[in-house]
Amino acid sequence: MSNNINERVGKLRDYLRKNGLAAFIFPSTDPHQGEYVPEHWQTRKWISGFDGSAGTAVVTLSDAALWTDSRYYIAAEQQLQGTPFKLMKDGQAETPSITEWLCQQLTENNVVGVDGEVFTETEIEEMQAALGMAGIMLKTDLNPAEELWTDRPPIPKNKVEIQPLEFAGESAESKIERVRQALREQKANGILISQLDDIAWLLNLRGSDVHCNPVFVSYVLLTLDEVTLFIDSEKLDDSVKNYLNKIGVRVKPYGEFQTLSISPLKGEDKAQKASPLRGGLVGSLKSIKNAAEIAGFRRAMIRDGVAMVKFLHWLNPAVEAGGQTELSIDRKLTALRAEQDLYRGFSFDTIAAYGPHGAIVHYEATPESDVKLEPKGFLLLDSGTQYQDGTTDITRTIALGPLTDEERLDYTLVLKGHIRLALTRFPDGISGTQIDALARYAMWQHGINYGHGTGHGVGSYLCAHEGPHQIRHTWKPAPLHAGMTVTNEPGIYRQGKHGVRIENTMLIVEDGETEFGKFLRLEPLTLCPIDLTPVLWNMMTAEEVAYINAYHEKVYEELSPLLTEEERLWLKVQCVAMPSQP
Amino acid sequence: MSNNINERVGKLRDYLRKNGLAAFIFPSTDPHQGEYVPEHWQTRKWISGFDGSAGTAVVTLSDAALWTDSRYYIAAEQQLQGTPFKLMKDGQAETPSITEWLCQQLTENNVVGVDGEVFTETEIEEMQAALGMAGIMLKTDLNPAEELWTDRPPIPKNKVEIQPLEFAGESAESKIERVRQALREQKANGILISQLDDIAWLLNLRGSDVHCNPVFVSYVLLTLDEVTLFIDSEKLDDSVKNYLNKIGVRVKPYGEFQTLSISPLKGEDKAQKASPLRGGLVGSLKSIKNAAEIAGFRRAMIRDGVAMVKFLHWLNPAVEAGGQTELSIDRKLTALRAEQDLYRGFSFDTIAAYGPHGAIVHYEATPESDVKLEPKGFLLLDSGTQYQDGTTDITRTIALGPLTDEERLDYTLVLKGHIRLALTRFPDGISGTQIDALARYAMWQHGINYGHGTGHGVGSYLCAHEGPHQIRHTWKPAPLHAGMTVTNEPGIYRQGKHGVRIENTMLIVEDGETEFGKFLRLEPLTLCPIDLTPVLWNMMTAEEVAYINAYHEKVYEELSPLLTEEERLWLKVQCVAMPSQP
Repeated sequence: MSNNINERVGKLRDYLRKNGLAAFIFPSTDPHQGEYVPEHWQTRKWISGFDGSAGTAVVTLSDAALWTDSRYYIAAEQQLQGTPFKLMKDGQAETPSITEWLCQQLTENNVVGVDGEVFTETEIEEMQAALGMAGIMLKTDLNPAEELWTDRPPIPKNKVEIQPLEFAGESAESKIERVRQALREQKANGILISQLDDIAWLLNLRGSDVHCNPVFVSYVLLTLDEVTLFIDSEKLDDSVKNYLNKIGVRVKPYGEFQTLSISPLKGEDKAQKASPLRGGLVGSLKSIKNAAEIAGFRRAMIRDGVAMVKFLHWLNPAVEAGGQTELSIDRKLTALRAEQDLYRGFSFDTIAAYGPHGAIVHYEATPESDVKLEPKGFLLLDSGTQYQDGTTDITRTIALGPLTDEERLDYTLVLKGHIRLALTRFPDGISGTQIDALARYAMWQHGINYGHGTGHGVGSYLCAHEGPHQIRHTWKPAPLHAGMTVTNEPGIYRQGKHGVRIENTMLIVEDGETEFGKFLRLEPLTLCPIDLTPVLWNMMTAEEVAYINAYHEKVYEELSPLLTEEERLWLKVQCVAMPSQP
Repeated sequence: MSNNINERVGKLRDYLRKNGLAAFIFPSTDPHQGEYVPEHWQTRKWISGFDGSAGTAVVTLSDAALWTDSRYYIAAEQQLQGTPFKLMKDGQAETPSITEWLCQQLTENNVVGVDGEVFTETEIEEMQAALGMAGIMLKTDLNPAEELWTDRPPIPKNKVEIQPLEFAGESAESKIERVRQALREQKANGILISQLDDIAWLLNLRGSDVHCNPVFVSYVLLTLDEVTLFIDSEKLDDSVKNYLNKIGVRVKPYGEFQTLSISPLKGEDKAQKASPLRGGLVGSLKSIKNAAEIAGFRRAMIRDGVAMVKFLHWLNPAVEAGGQTELSIDRKLTALRAEQDLYRGFSFDTIAAYGPHGAIVHYEATPESDVKLEPKGFLLLDSGTQYQDGTTDITRTIALGPLTDEERLDYTLVLKGHIRLALTRFPDGISGTQIDALARYAMWQHGINYGHGTGHGVGSYLCAHEGPHQIRHTWKPAPLHAGMTVTNEPGIYRQGKHGVRIENTMLIVEDGETEFGKFLRLEPLTLCPIDLTPVLWNMMTAEEVAYINAYHEKVYEELSPLLTEEERLWLKVQCVAMPSQP
């Protein structure tokens, strides 16, 4: 692999010289702002070999560097070995930003190249301002991958399907009308929608162009009078064409979007400058789930919980019998999920991370990294499924046998954080940033912290990571409201030792109104027992124990009718009510 | 008063017509970004009559409105009665922003006037952008107060004093060198300092131009080679002139600043565009207190605590004896503080708020509002002192007699929030926004919240409200570091009933380093017993009771040697260790 990378960087440098450039920036984004980028746009992976979901590669004539965040420090270090890329650890005080680094590396009047299509306008403006301070220019109409990436995968052309109303809960016509209503309130003429899950949600369509995400590559231009879908028409069979026609959506070729002058939006009318040209509005509407979507989530969580319980019941004896690895148990879990109704595949690549691998926050087992599971220590298992009626995202950390005191302490602190957040009543409309600390308080007291966010939205048969809200230590202004889904997933990671994370997908629900306003709380949607064998019970408050007992009672009630007798008895033991410590 | 206001608004509208304006905006700011604005610049109070510390008045040819935040809703409603101003409640979803409201009121090509000197450049740009969307223009070189405010107070000309090195802890030369070092790191040529407490800190000077704040009206231009102080030279006696000469600070007339072309800063050199032209840098240096400043705070807190204990010992019997009012007890407290060494006056106007007045967050008793204190219910007392070695800010809520169940509950929840924040260990460098929820958790569980922030920095014989850090529900990115002061002041306010707030000024201290980084915690600087008579002890955890007991032990230890025998015995009872509930 590293040989390929050296060769590609060499060819890129020839391209830079030929085009009068001093550097090129390859981000992890595509023109549709998705987290999972179709291979066609994975130019950063192509040039650097680093395959994490977040990272930016920069190549100059004499140097090369890759920025990524704490989730990927360890993985990136491994993958960049033998390549010209040095790792730049984003989020550490001593790490320069990309533009700071370029200002150090380059000199006045140098030109940096980017493919303008895969950046937002704001990003381009910020780069221009930062580089401009050192007299460096930015050229945005370049795409070296087009020329140099000889076996570049094409833009996918998979078929689009209709998401039935029984699952979507609201017709596309009604959604379009709600968007128009918001546009009228904002005195905007229209909106360009480039985010693929926003398009899928709006039109009640699903696809399979992007790994793990049931979306299709397209754009939508929605004005007060018209809706135009820019998409390769090969993807639409007659039933979908008829459906689009019926709901008044015009279809134009995907490529035509690039040449669109958007004259109705870029005209003289001042009011439309307020138009949210890229996203925001549709994402906010999508984030509040309707009754049918919530009912779908509940059904999907029962099926996913049944698969998880069958898996967990099987796991420990299988590990003790020997021969199981990270990859083999992932296959087993996938097979159990695939038996469930409305199964449509992964919602993200499973993280099955044994022992020290658990400390690599976004570890993905490969044939090279795969290890045998021993009957000791922790298995961290973060996985999710696309069901047609709901997307799941669950993490369990499972004791495969004896644990160290540190493993028990870390597990207990993560569980306390998870429960504290679940117990928190909070004012309607506050940002997730404002409640993030509640998941961290217990571990902070022990001098422990984690670098990732605590929660993200989950789509309704859409993306496992859905915005705009998050529960996060960095500022995410999007307000929390009833009807949103959000995960609750604190963790502790000790490099070279273990990782612990406990995650349920939650629904934000109303919790009364007082003279101080409306209040909300989180209700678990995920149904799966939480391993209690690692818990240090003397550290748990009565309130925390009561929460666990109530959750396990609900898990048993919902899942036990769908299990074999042996599985049911196993679940009963997992869900037995624990006494509070005096 | 309302007659005066109607007359002034009438004259302003004549001015608007004469100058071709459709509206004028009067903010609460002055050219020096201070919280307390010298009367000379209090144009918003002059035009509207509203005297709160935050608020913006807008007058159009046919309408007038005043925006203020939840702290002042009640006070503003009262003060605006009979005037043309309607109250706009900032922070409520249905309240339009000032520019939104102007866009509704005015039409294309209308012109809005402001005095550009009292806004920051960013504020001007944001207003221009927002108004521009509706085709409305902004004119920034207008000052109607100059023409219409006939008895406008002059800019104060009080004498400037040297803050001795034993209190300042670092020479002005050393501070200037640290600022220059930061400028060199940022490749900036210089910095304009307009914030008065930044200037006072930098030069180790103090003044008395601004109510409650020992600062003096001036500007500083600090370049890599020179420091120029723009100030009315009448304010400087020979000793101060000699001092400034000795430390290499040039003095120029205050008025000259306005005509300064700042050519060395506005030249062609690109690097200096990174220069923080207004504040930020100096404020960050100032916020970390040195050892002498911390020692000064500790001494000042002992003296302030002694005054508070003498006052509290006197209070309840005096109220029972009859004849005490909000104003009379404030006079008593002030007299006790004035007896203390190094006393230099209030650090802000005392809030002595009895019963329902406690719910008016920034209540200030006036002869008209003053009420008699009865031996029942709560007195909320928020006060602070300027001592030459440290500024204090303390709130106690005191039971004057029997309480309602709701008063006891609210008091207990506020105390729990105060203690939770004080017990929190947190990572170095996070924002105060990230820990704000810990002070609210207990009351949120009861459906209660408060609209103000939880904490602010406190100056070293400077402003009682000092930035840049805060502990706040809205986003304040400034990181928390060891050596900063910050208040801890959650509250609960029930309109028409009572208010509860408990506030200590805290010092941020280091609390160890682990593999996850440095951790911090808050240590109380304020020394004064917290009234325990209202506490519902069955709601308090053992950890919370232990915190209270340790705090009271420290208060007794520090203050008891400085009290009369009778006061000492009273304090001993206040500080008796409470048992934990089983």
